[in-house]
Amino acid sequence: MLSSGISELIQELKTRGARRVALQFPEGLKRKAARYAAGLREAGFDVMVSGDPCYGACDLALDTLADADVLVHVGHTPVDNRDRVIFIPYSVDFDVTILEKALPLLKEKTVSLVTTVQHVHLVPAMEEFLRSRGIDTRVAEGKGRTPCRGQVLGCSFSAAKDAGADEILYVGTGLFHPIGIALSTKKRVVALDPLSGICSEVSGETLLRRRFAIIEKAKAAKNTAIILSTKSGQARKELAEGLAALSPGAVIVTMQEVSPDELTNLGFGCYVNTACPRLAYDDQVRFPVPVLSPQEFEIVCGKRRWDDYTVDEIP
Amino acid sequence: MLSSGISELIQELKTRGARRVALQFPEGLKRKAARYAAGLREAGFDVMVSGDPCYGACDLALDTLADADVLVHVGHTPVDNRDRVIFIPYSVDFDVTILEKALPLLKEKTVSLVTTVQHVHLVPAMEEFLRSRGIDTRVAEGKGRTPCRGQVLGCSFSAAKDAGADEILYVGTGLFHPIGIALSTKKRVVALDPLSGICSEVSGETLLRRRFAIIEKAKAAKNTAIILSTKSGQARKELAEGLAALSPGAVIVTMQEVSPDELTNLGFGCYVNTACPRLAYDDQVRFPVPVLSPQEFEIVCGKRRWDDYTVDEIP
Repeated sequence: MLSSGISELIQELKTRGARRVALQFPEGLKRKAARYAAGLREAGFDVMVSGDPCYGACDLALDTLADADVLVHVGHTPVDNRDRVIFIPYSVDFDVTILEKALPLLKEKTVSLVTTVQHVHLVPAMEEFLRSRGIDTRVAEGKGRTPCRGQVLGCSFSAAKDAGADEILYVGTGLFHPIGIALSTKKRVVALDPLSGICSEVSGETLLRRRFAIIEKAKAAKNTAIILSTKSGQARKELAEGLAALSPGAVIVTMQEVSPDELTNLGFGCYVNTACPRLAYDDQVRFPVPVLSPQEFEIVCGKRRWDDYTVDEIP
Repeated sequence: MLSSGISELIQELKTRGARRVALQFPEGLKRKAARYAAGLREAGFDVMVSGDPCYGACDLALDTLADADVLVHVGHTPVDNRDRVIFIPYSVDFDVTILEKALPLLKEKTVSLVTTVQHVHLVPAMEEFLRSRGIDTRVAEGKGRTPCRGQVLGCSFSAAKDAGADEILYVGTGLFHPIGIALSTKKRVVALDPLSGICSEVSGETLLRRRFAIIEKAKAAKNTAIILSTKSGQARKELAEGLAALSPGAVIVTMQEVSPDELTNLGFGCYVNTACPRLAYDDQVRFPVPVLSPQEFEIVCGKRRWDDYTVDEIP
């Protein structure tokens, strides 16, 4: 992994002997493509940009890489091993004293600290700050899809579980990650947005109630499609086949992008999402019919009890 | 090619010794997927459905086929040779006496007849009807991307050119095909919608004026992306590379679906479309900035004269 400077990237590409370079950016950083492409072309490389939607390192532009020597993927850490992919993190800084805002909400003296990839470089400074305020701060080592210390993804909360404290402090934007952490760990979760300073205790209860309503609605569906992603790090084929076997009316449907339009056009009464776990939880309001997680479909099929509800993660 | 009956399809699949079958439908027919899947599963096949957008045989679900023995593609004729793909046409009938409505608009005694894939089975009946009304009717043989007699595609109007008459009768829905035929052949074109009976003479002049305005706007763009499709029958790589070489600021951007959101996110000042030719002409109103055809970009770069404007086709 490299820092985000183009000159370091050029050095790395030269070391690798690359000539044809494919570039990939997530949605929020796509506008940087033109500048990167111009810089690399000036340095003598042939450049192609992947213009498809990208939301994570689970979503590598392997079709563009097929025609290049190297794929440069900006903004995420790797979720699997790929020789010909260079991952460039995109760091977002903040003043760690903003964590002061979280202190009144913490109830325990021992706290597990987690954050998202754009802030993982600040984990040591955040640890130091919390310890200076008397908090015994635990941070899990990186592993698997979350290679950085303290890192969580929308599909992997193991850093929150592994750190071991009874209370978890999530530092990052959005509520999806802390809600997922609450459901996954069953522990108390405090979420701090480090950019706005807004801090709150987060619970999975509201999401759970909504999900139970959707599960009930799904039971009335006449047929079911099991969505199997064609993205590199989301293609859970064994899972999809196992779920399809649970119901005689279930059919596997392959999809690159899981879009409301396509679900409407296909016209199934219910979908089970084995692609990015966030889709079922975050985007239900955009979808025409229930889109269940794998575990929720097991409840519908009587293979799992309501009490064993758990949030979907990719190991 | 088969008729649209599932029993004939099952016979063909058995003859081929297929066990795992992938199904693909265009947008308007996607709702048939559940019924086809159920029928094939009952007959003992493993079935997967491709849920990605599909607008033609240029857009084969090769990623789904990678995990199956055969891909069944419904609604289009082949644009290239593929051993493991079965194409099932989808025929839409109408009473050919509706062509009576076109007679008052025809000025010549010799007319070239063209139509789209869902009506090609009616070409002999349409010929007979027109001849019975004293029209010397010419129909081109199928070739290349348009294998059926008299067939045109949104990217290939050669059946209109090859039939040779000075006047062309297009029977089909929509105005894109007849406008494309007018621009491609420079001949008089009469379009008859066989479902509504609405008939009119069609000219490319309005489209041309709009395109000239867009070309002018594109000249002010600070940078340009050349869109290279990753779809099987739209990937015109040599063309894209040739166009990128015309301008020092041009970068190749690979895309599966050319969507307004992605063009906005990428933020280039102008795009050149080497994917489905219809995108530039039909969807400009949805795009945030000029999306040019290859020939239009040649005009911008001074490699083609305005007088040599021609509509983009895929040979």
